[in-house]
Amino acid sequence: MHDAPAAIVIHGTLLHTPVFGEVEVLAGALISVTSDGRIATVCPQNSPRHPEILSSAREAGTLTELRPGQYLLPGFVDLHIHAPQWPQMGKALEMPLNEWLQQRTFPLEAKYDDIDFARQSYESLVDNLLANGTTTAAYFGTVHVAATTLLADIAHDKGQRAIIGKVAMDNIDECPEFYRDNSTTAGLDGTRELIEHINAIPNNGRPLVLPAVTPRFIPSCTDEMLHGLAQIVSEYGCHVQTHCSESDWEHQYVIDRHGMKDTQSLDRIGLLTGKTILAHSNLIDDEDMSTIKARASSVAHCPLSNLYFSHSVFPLRKALDSGLKVGLGTDISGGPSPSILHNCQSAIGVSRALEDGVNPRMAADDRGTPESRIDFREAFWMATVGGANALGLKVGQFRQDFEFDAVLVDTGVAGSNLVVWENLDSPDDILQKIIYNADRQNIKNVWVQGRQVRA
Amino acid sequence: MHDAPAAIVIHGTLLHTPVFGEVEVLAGALISVTSDGRIATVCPQNSPRHPEILSSAREAGTLTELRPGQYLLPGFVDLHIHAPQWPQMGKALEMPLNEWLQQRTFPLEAKYDDIDFARQSYESLVDNLLANGTTTAAYFGTVHVAATTLLADIAHDKGQRAIIGKVAMDNIDECPEFYRDNSTTAGLDGTRELIEHINAIPNNGRPLVLPAVTPRFIPSCTDEMLHGLAQIVSEYGCHVQTHCSESDWEHQYVIDRHGMKDTQSLDRIGLLTGKTILAHSNLIDDEDMSTIKARASSVAHCPLSNLYFSHSVFPLRKALDSGLKVGLGTDISGGPSPSILHNCQSAIGVSRALEDGVNPRMAADDRGTPESRIDFREAFWMATVGGANALGLKVGQFRQDFEFDAVLVDTGVAGSNLVVWENLDSPDDILQKIIYNADRQNIKNVWVQGRQVRA
Repeated sequence: MHDAPAAIVIHGTLLHTPVFGEVEVLAGALISVTSDGRIATVCPQNSPRHPEILSSAREAGTLTELRPGQYLLPGFVDLHIHAPQWPQMGKALEMPLNEWLQQRTFPLEAKYDDIDFARQSYESLVDNLLANGTTTAAYFGTVHVAATTLLADIAHDKGQRAIIGKVAMDNIDECPEFYRDNSTTAGLDGTRELIEHINAIPNNGRPLVLPAVTPRFIPSCTDEMLHGLAQIVSEYGCHVQTHCSESDWEHQYVIDRHGMKDTQSLDRIGLLTGKTILAHSNLIDDEDMSTIKARASSVAHCPLSNLYFSHSVFPLRKALDSGLKVGLGTDISGGPSPSILHNCQSAIGVSRALEDGVNPRMAADDRGTPESRIDFREAFWMATVGGANALGLKVGQFRQDFEFDAVLVDTGVAGSNLVVWENLDSPDDILQKIIYNADRQNIKNVWVQGRQVRA
Repeated sequence: MHDAPAAIVIHGTLLHTPVFGEVEVLAGALISVTSDGRIATVCPQNSPRHPEILSSAREAGTLTELRPGQYLLPGFVDLHIHAPQWPQMGKALEMPLNEWLQQRTFPLEAKYDDIDFARQSYESLVDNLLANGTTTAAYFGTVHVAATTLLADIAHDKGQRAIIGKVAMDNIDECPEFYRDNSTTAGLDGTRELIEHINAIPNNGRPLVLPAVTPRFIPSCTDEMLHGLAQIVSEYGCHVQTHCSESDWEHQYVIDRHGMKDTQSLDRIGLLTGKTILAHSNLIDDEDMSTIKARASSVAHCPLSNLYFSHSVFPLRKALDSGLKVGLGTDISGGPSPSILHNCQSAIGVSRALEDGVNPRMAADDRGTPESRIDFREAFWMATVGGANALGLKVGQFRQDFEFDAVLVDTGVAGSNLVVWENLDSPDDILQKIIYNADRQNIKNVWVQGRQVRA
């Protein structure tokens, strides 16, 4: 198959981080993409095959030449988004979690009973995330089956790679009457219906959209619901996504109700699998980390939302050093930005806050947690390779046989805060500047599975 | 004078924060600006004079009608920028302060001996800051008189309100041979030369550009230099800007050398005045706060750079509650963003980190510093009124006789992350969304002293 003519050949500088903490710069490389959207070859400038591939592509009219100042990056992976909270992004961040949920968030999510509202919101969301370079998104929907299947259709039609779940929440003690599953059975049946719907979307054998069993978090679900969802997971082998030990209240709630921590409870029930994404996980201890690692589950680190709703910073470095799979999540709208690059900035920033501490009235030596920081290379790895590993997808780097999910960043856009100085900036500097100051204006093209999804 | 016909009349919704913590929304208001750039009147929609002002302005052709979704905000005040570090913005943030200074920053600043390089960099800087809505900027220059006078000329010509200082640094123990004042006398003479140059720039009696005596920080200056600068301050009555108790190293250095803390030492020397701006000031204690308050000096809080170089978070809330004047600084390039709105986000975020604490392995009650947070209204106040108060300027709010420094934010720009939902967002929500997701695309117009400086 790799000998078939490439559908797209891009010639220019590729920046990616296949190895944690290292930027690989492939200047003047050629990347060839098959007609079904896989990377056929990545040919470095000094390869003997380079001239031939270049001239064939030119002849075939499949060549795209990057201009100076343009860079091809892997597409970004967002491991945690509340799709229905899109209209609330960037507001209500001053509210305590419980008020925020009961007064703002649940009433907003309840509106997705209205399919027209759902369509307007979800189309806006997917368009905006693609424009920000998010080629893969893991979405929590609402309790509504219709709105959530619509989200799956929209993601598929617009060409975004997505993991999508109908939120399960049937515990009448924690969920308001106006917004919860009508019954445990209704929640389970709805979950099955969404999975069947997504699995039936026509695809080329490598589906863009995948279903996820999605208990909101343990407090919102009855034990019957949790066990029912675990049964569904065992039948379909699909992804699982939920919140884990996000805040002090939630962490303690689970201990009080189940006599054990989130990871132990999820594990016992059968919801901790190699395809489980645990959002936040701020309060996990060493034992939890071992459990997560043993099950090959993943963590979605949401650095911006850590500041507003977690009352602490996820011990990212420790998790990475312990061998956990970790990627980044925007947590819209607990986090106020749709951009994974902004979340890279924030992941670096909060890791520094954790390492150095924050309280200036304490002695420097007592203030922080040594060896907690990450740098821009590690943040970018999380935004791409880390997210891909968390979801078990062949994306996030430029490598033969991987999916061609990519972002073209143009550092030469006039009227942008990304200012590159040719004689002063190395390729590593340029990647760091992209992380800190590229915005969606600089993202000129986005491809998912070889399809250009933003012109 | 206020009866003379207005040169500009803008009709639309004004958002500002004249009172700390409160958003004032003036829907359908008329703001009239004199030909010399002052606010003549702010006329609310329900005023009996409204129809007359509106129709006169329409007749005179001086009316600008804001479209739905457009908002007029006060221009932003940036209290701390290292102008020469503009090319370094967004990189080298992973380096420790000392390496960063010696290996990257001093060599970069030394390049401003080349006036062509200085012109290229400073023109780019001022253009970019204006495009981000920064109508007032307090700039550290370099040791070079020529480059720093050029920066003053560029700010004046482009119409940015600016406080500008030639950096004084003559201590051979702390400053490298390739980048320092040639002698104490040279540093003092250069400081005078810059002040005289700026004071001679023709103006309408309300100068746009003002000079500042600018000892880099105590470690970089000899005592002779510090005392000489204080003499200059007493002669010219100009602004002073310096770094204060930014990091553990610097804070201890001053104690070791002078036997007292930064504020005490600056005060004793005569550098703590009602026109002094102290950058960072992370490690100031209650006594320092009293001293700063007694002298009516100000603090430039630089929240983004706190994370990279201060190893702690400035106790902002405590400073505000103690009656200190505090505004925001980007600290380019110790901070990676040119946007005061980004720094509002960060000021909120780091205040939450300080309040809640960051280390999840500590008990919730022991983790943080209660009552440290600010919200978006307070952050916006700091970005406008707080900065204005710090500098003693009549800017930062829409009020008769104040300077017309303003920003037109358009929430309806296609391809922006600022998404407003007409039926769901209140004016306060809109301001919060502007803070979190407006970028320079949304800033359609910028005025300083009534002059449109960005079309």
